[in-house]
Amino acid sequence: MEFDLIARIRARAAARADVVLGIGDDCALLQPPAGMQLAVTADTLNAGVHFPQDSVPGDIGWKALAVNLSDLAAMGAVPVWCLLSLSLPTSDESWVDAFLDGFLGLAAMHNVALVGGDTTRGPLSIGVTAHGLVAPGSALRRNDARDGDDVWVSGQLGDAAAALALISADGTNAPPAAVAAALRARLDRPEPRVALGQALAGVANACIDVSDGLLADLGHVCAASNVAARINVDALPSSAALDALGLGAGLRRALQASGGDDYELCFTAPPARREAVAAAAAAADVAVTRIGSIHASTGLQAWDADGVEWTPPRSGYVHFSS
Amino acid sequence: MEFDLIARIRARAAARADVVLGIGDDCALLQPPAGMQLAVTADTLNAGVHFPQDSVPGDIGWKALAVNLSDLAAMGAVPVWCLLSLSLPTSDESWVDAFLDGFLGLAAMHNVALVGGDTTRGPLSIGVTAHGLVAPGSALRRNDARDGDDVWVSGQLGDAAAALALISADGTNAPPAAVAAALRARLDRPEPRVALGQALAGVANACIDVSDGLLADLGHVCAASNVAARINVDALPSSAALDALGLGAGLRRALQASGGDDYELCFTAPPARREAVAAAAAAADVAVTRIGSIHASTGLQAWDADGVEWTPPRSGYVHFSS
Repeated sequence: MEFDLIARIRARAAARADVVLGIGDDCALLQPPAGMQLAVTADTLNAGVHFPQDSVPGDIGWKALAVNLSDLAAMGAVPVWCLLSLSLPTSDESWVDAFLDGFLGLAAMHNVALVGGDTTRGPLSIGVTAHGLVAPGSALRRNDARDGDDVWVSGQLGDAAAALALISADGTNAPPAAVAAALRARLDRPEPRVALGQALAGVANACIDVSDGLLADLGHVCAASNVAARINVDALPSSAALDALGLGAGLRRALQASGGDDYELCFTAPPARREAVAAAAAAADVAVTRIGSIHASTGLQAWDADGVEWTPPRSGYVHFSS
Repeated sequence: MEFDLIARIRARAAARADVVLGIGDDCALLQPPAGMQLAVTADTLNAGVHFPQDSVPGDIGWKALAVNLSDLAAMGAVPVWCLLSLSLPTSDESWVDAFLDGFLGLAAMHNVALVGGDTTRGPLSIGVTAHGLVAPGSALRRNDARDGDDVWVSGQLGDAAAALALISADGTNAPPAAVAAALRARLDRPEPRVALGQALAGVANACIDVSDGLLADLGHVCAASNVAARINVDALPSSAALDALGLGAGLRRALQASGGDDYELCFTAPPARREAVAAAAAAADVAVTRIGSIHASTGLQAWDADGVEWTPPRSGYVHFSS
């Protein structure tokens, strides 16, 4: 597409010593350190599907990189390089500048260099490929959960799903603006748990990031590891903003157990490593909560605090009724 | 998106010894060989922009990978891994199967492993990230063309642009079906010059692939190298199919010099290396043609066989008049 758009992006991309050649040639040239493995992931965000149509460009840029860094975090990898494929309906310099504020702002926080990609004319779509480094044998996988492991989750669950539900709510009983803003920030600017993922290498047995919803993602771990999980839906950690909504138990459980887009890490570790998990969480400055356990069977069951089995609502969508 | 779609793709992806973990976890895990540099490129294809709306899925799959392998070829890199981000308006298994026939067919020809990516709901769009290996210092760049170099191009130019022009032609004086099919094949299934790019490492000074059109792409080489180029538009190699159209000189020159999508390699090398260029071309079994020279100035000039300066038509689009 427009060559000055690429020049605009190139001028703002940060350098790294291992980037031999960045944006501007047919390929980027990168020098991986000897002996390390490369963790690579690619995730695309489409308008109206992966972010609300009213999202501001800075948030879109942030989230497009964040969901990819979250995948690196779930493997315990150290982020290093990324590529950006940007499809835009029109060439809008101020939109691109604001988008880059969010994208490159997050990249700078994690020392990630933008080394390539392309810009094309088309419906708004953002494709990102992210690269990380991990020592051989130390990557966190989905398929290593074992009978007896604790199930843990980082941070809090349900905020992003609550924000999404508020967007389509009718405004009756709307929460205070500060509460709504706090929830919306979790939807728009998720914090990839990069430091925690690295700290969990050698501590956790299995790990995944919560993008589709806790039950769905933990279900992937169970299927890949050929084990079962039991979780306590009333033990799921919630934010002060979510608590401030004063939701009934049914709705709160649905948001926390089935809502997506939280980008927390869900991981398993043997009970003997509870102190090591706590130390990793402290080192990464992220709260972690024990929410269940792994068993030598298959499937996933959720129980409430009274020991009653809980099943999520049939619909994948959660609506606030006024 | 649909998990069975990912399973469908995963089941067909080929293995490589350096793929520690392929499709199915948060990231792929790859083991780069010690000491080698990584060449990485990402190109997205959108329907109606990068391929005609009537393209069949197998051709779309082929081309999506081909344009990325062409970027690796232009650096002299050996292709190794790729990721695929597929946005589809609907979940259509037979479409995906046919798409993969083209994509994975080309991947198998070049021993490229599909190691990750994602599938999303959205307007048809195909994002590919491709990885190659190159020895430190041996990558072909755009910025190393030098005063006195010959300018070369591989294969033939103009076929893809002619095919595109035929699509929008009114059918009057339509060429024989075999001619139209030969041209269309060059548009739909370009052959990335992977072997030639590798053979030119240490022989060519600068290299680029012809995606936007010879003049545009050679212009990028001149700008990056801070040199001028002079080319002979009547020396540009043409296919038998293009010759069969019996075009006037003006239209033929426009298609060959300004038409895009040929994915040939345009490269420069000192005259002392003409035999080495010929040997590289023979080793790769691709024809190469000397079309001009590099000079210590700036800009790009095209001349015809009579020594008259030639400038491309103002419009970027070429139409056949009936």
